[in-house]
Amino acid sequence: MLGGMQDFELRVPRLIDHAAREDGTREIVSQWADGTQTRTDWAGIARDARKLAQALERLDMHPGDRIATLAMNHSRHLVAWYGAIGMGAVIHTINPRLFDEQLVYIANHAQDRVLLYDKQFQPLVDRLKSQWTSIEHYIAFDDAGPDGFEALIAREDGDYAWVEGPERDPCMLCYTSGTTGNPKGVLYQHRSTVIHAMAEVSPDIFNLSSSAVVLPVVPMFHAASWGLPFACALAGAKFVFSQVNDPAVLCRLMNDEKVTHSAGVPTVWLAMFGHIDATGESPRHLQQVTIGGSAAPRAMIERIMAMGTAVKHLWGMTETSPIGTAGALPPAWDAMSADERLDLVSKQGRIPFGIELRVLDDDDREQPRDGRASGRLQVRGPWVVKRYFGAANDAVDADNWFDTGDVAVLHPDGTMQITDRAKDVIKSGGEWISSVDLENAAVGCPGVAEAAAIGIHHPKWDERPLLLVVRKPDSTVTPGEIMAHLGGHVAKWWLPDEILFVDSLPHTATGKLLKTELRARYKDHRLAEA
Amino acid sequence: MLGGMQDFELRVPRLIDHAAREDGTREIVSQWADGTQTRTDWAGIARDARKLAQALERLDMHPGDRIATLAMNHSRHLVAWYGAIGMGAVIHTINPRLFDEQLVYIANHAQDRVLLYDKQFQPLVDRLKSQWTSIEHYIAFDDAGPDGFEALIAREDGDYAWVEGPERDPCMLCYTSGTTGNPKGVLYQHRSTVIHAMAEVSPDIFNLSSSAVVLPVVPMFHAASWGLPFACALAGAKFVFSQVNDPAVLCRLMNDEKVTHSAGVPTVWLAMFGHIDATGESPRHLQQVTIGGSAAPRAMIERIMAMGTAVKHLWGMTETSPIGTAGALPPAWDAMSADERLDLVSKQGRIPFGIELRVLDDDDREQPRDGRASGRLQVRGPWVVKRYFGAANDAVDADNWFDTGDVAVLHPDGTMQITDRAKDVIKSGGEWISSVDLENAAVGCPGVAEAAAIGIHHPKWDERPLLLVVRKPDSTVTPGEIMAHLGGHVAKWWLPDEILFVDSLPHTATGKLLKTELRARYKDHRLAEA
Repeated sequence: MLGGMQDFELRVPRLIDHAAREDGTREIVSQWADGTQTRTDWAGIARDARKLAQALERLDMHPGDRIATLAMNHSRHLVAWYGAIGMGAVIHTINPRLFDEQLVYIANHAQDRVLLYDKQFQPLVDRLKSQWTSIEHYIAFDDAGPDGFEALIAREDGDYAWVEGPERDPCMLCYTSGTTGNPKGVLYQHRSTVIHAMAEVSPDIFNLSSSAVVLPVVPMFHAASWGLPFACALAGAKFVFSQVNDPAVLCRLMNDEKVTHSAGVPTVWLAMFGHIDATGESPRHLQQVTIGGSAAPRAMIERIMAMGTAVKHLWGMTETSPIGTAGALPPAWDAMSADERLDLVSKQGRIPFGIELRVLDDDDREQPRDGRASGRLQVRGPWVVKRYFGAANDAVDADNWFDTGDVAVLHPDGTMQITDRAKDVIKSGGEWISSVDLENAAVGCPGVAEAAAIGIHHPKWDERPLLLVVRKPDSTVTPGEIMAHLGGHVAKWWLPDEILFVDSLPHTATGKLLKTELRARYKDHRLAEA
Repeated sequence: MLGGMQDFELRVPRLIDHAAREDGTREIVSQWADGTQTRTDWAGIARDARKLAQALERLDMHPGDRIATLAMNHSRHLVAWYGAIGMGAVIHTINPRLFDEQLVYIANHAQDRVLLYDKQFQPLVDRLKSQWTSIEHYIAFDDAGPDGFEALIAREDGDYAWVEGPERDPCMLCYTSGTTGNPKGVLYQHRSTVIHAMAEVSPDIFNLSSSAVVLPVVPMFHAASWGLPFACALAGAKFVFSQVNDPAVLCRLMNDEKVTHSAGVPTVWLAMFGHIDATGESPRHLQQVTIGGSAAPRAMIERIMAMGTAVKHLWGMTETSPIGTAGALPPAWDAMSADERLDLVSKQGRIPFGIELRVLDDDDREQPRDGRASGRLQVRGPWVVKRYFGAANDAVDADNWFDTGDVAVLHPDGTMQITDRAKDVIKSGGEWISSVDLENAAVGCPGVAEAAAIGIHHPKWDERPLLLVVRKPDSTVTPGEIMAHLGGHVAKWWLPDEILFVDSLPHTATGKLLKTELRARYKDHRLAEA
């Protein structure tokens, strides 16, 4: 030993210890579904988490055991995370919007031993209880009685030292809600979580300081609320939760608590616009809005930027903790025109330290960063999955590359742009047609409510696009009108061979188009012009 | 194996790889002492670093070997860091301002095998060469001939893969320039350096994004230029170096290159003020100035803030990589008065994630964070020393606490304030008198150029203050006038028992008051009033 620096295991409890010690009085606000509000602070979260750790040990829970939650965003859910992780257990956030069979599969596959849940999900719990084979304890966060969460921790004194251990121990489990096959569990580690949180506070990602006031609209069961409950502890930021996602409630909360940072999927902001248009009330303190989950429409970005709020696109997935790319502003930002700025922010952002991306063509050749060559997007890094929970094999190749299932283009300035999901891309004559681009162009046509493009077998071109369109109520738009509109937005050879009107389109539990079902439904369809 | 995330060793070459890949065209500007300027970029630094790694291997250097530098700030020095570290060696930055005997001791103790140096230090090299017993190769950065740095790397093709290894491998060696005893080497590790860099880019410390343009005035031989060459690679910032610290050169460079962030000791800004007063030219793009090394006077902070530039105090030491605390703005900042802001920024800042501080009294009792109780400041964390290079024992206690030698107060809001060096504090009747506070108050008296306060043995009070004063040229200020001035600034029992005028005061190589010598000189002094 020649000398050196200190050992310091990158363990999640260090985050809550830091927050409690250095920013102990920064508030944690919870807006509950019943209209009430509670306030605690980082010191309070740490104290309650220690009590929960004691209570879980009293329930005979041990390090490595899975403690599940079925809950919206609130301070008790946050206590559950730090308490379970602090006693060495693995917190498993279950998405209550999944289908019953997935909910049964996930809890059984994870072998969850405790379920902490919001009472609004009581019907779901009652319905599935008999099929969940490993859960021994059911505790409702918002049950004020002797069996509820507050009563559970009130019995403890909080005199508790976190369980120590290696930084590569698991701390959290999140299942992906794939459109095919069974959900797969991503097992986050203490180390990956802490490094991810350190990356997230940086100016080029969430830009979080102890002065920030953060309201994550993204649920805590979606990729750990994009890591914000960890990053905000690290930064010592004020945290504002809402158990409901009603835009009127959110807008009032944002103004009352002077929220500076928010994060959520595009539909959140669509709903907020509706609220602003209807009432004239809009969030007044927002400095940065982060949008992920799916691509934000250009008009949405433009409108938020016009409010004086920075917009950052985030791309990632449960498998990437979830930060893959984020909308860092380039050095040339000040010199860019409004249109150039919108073009840039509409893409998925740049690659932070730690993450590596590459784009491969069908022959596994790495594509240049030329802003044109698209291909399968692969990712690797310290907070990227290696092997799914309980899987027999790694989810990555020998060099740790994880295939995202997305199709993307890398631009010369390092910006990444998602163009499609790999399985949804339409392969026509050896070239790729982006189903997403076709759909976006179609939705821009007056009278079109929703559209889905899928590839249909074609004797000459391998596949050609079929466009399924849901018309807006009372619309009489014709295939010819849609085709004429598309002609102004996509290459001629991308134009669908046929347009069919349908009453509705199938969706996944999280609102994405269920293209697997559409492809099955139209498997034997013969294109009108084929 | 239940599943989990990827292995990703936190190695320094990942920083330069990231910068070259994602921000490869961000410029690295070097202003040389001869008035010329050169420009490269992160891709160029990475390319040259690979060539240097090849060249060092050709010189029979191996992983773990120490490669020394004796140089100011410029791009070739940066290449040396990444090249030496990239081949697994340890870069050892030597402070050319040390005394000869220290320079001899340090290089021999480190067993440096190569010395890369600036030609301005040729006389020093010629003078000490015969006493340096381990250095085999001398290479001048700015020698344009066949034996110079550029010729050395020009022979290589840059087709080189960085040496891999555990993240706890050493990567850098910096010696402290203590006022007593031999200098001690702090051996930074890949892991500590990368975690430190991740922390540094956060909004509460350097606030670095890829849009930042950074000119570190702090030399690369001072605690790794406070880590900026690593943090800027991580952020992908533009980097501006100057081989000279003339304020006219720095000011022009800051304006020409649109420098947004700078960092240095207080004297740098004093010199800059002189330049501004003399010419009317001032830096126009600075967003943040970080001041460390010693405390910035309140008037300095006020003047920089009046320029519309944020000021952050930094406290740390070579042993802390060097970030200990940084001037994070508190949530209440917007509501604070100008005076309250100055009070806050004048302190040493808040504690970032990773770092823990505590203050102990003489009986090793931890003191409360009440803004009053002062005591010995101790620190621990992932980028804090554990054992000095080659030392037989740890530099920390069993719980990793490192005694900083500073005396400090912790405030209720988590702000830390240095009040003295532990060995300089004057212990009077069981209470502590801050020599620094006395000196600062004395320097505020018209006619006083410099002052030093030391404790002199006193039969009743143990110690009482003696104040040594250097008068300004032509000043006729009297002890009575100084005492009257002090009376308005410090407690009555802090007033020195005696004031002596001296022609000059002794300093260390880095400009700090050499109190050990003063204490020795006045060891047998009897206070006038004792």
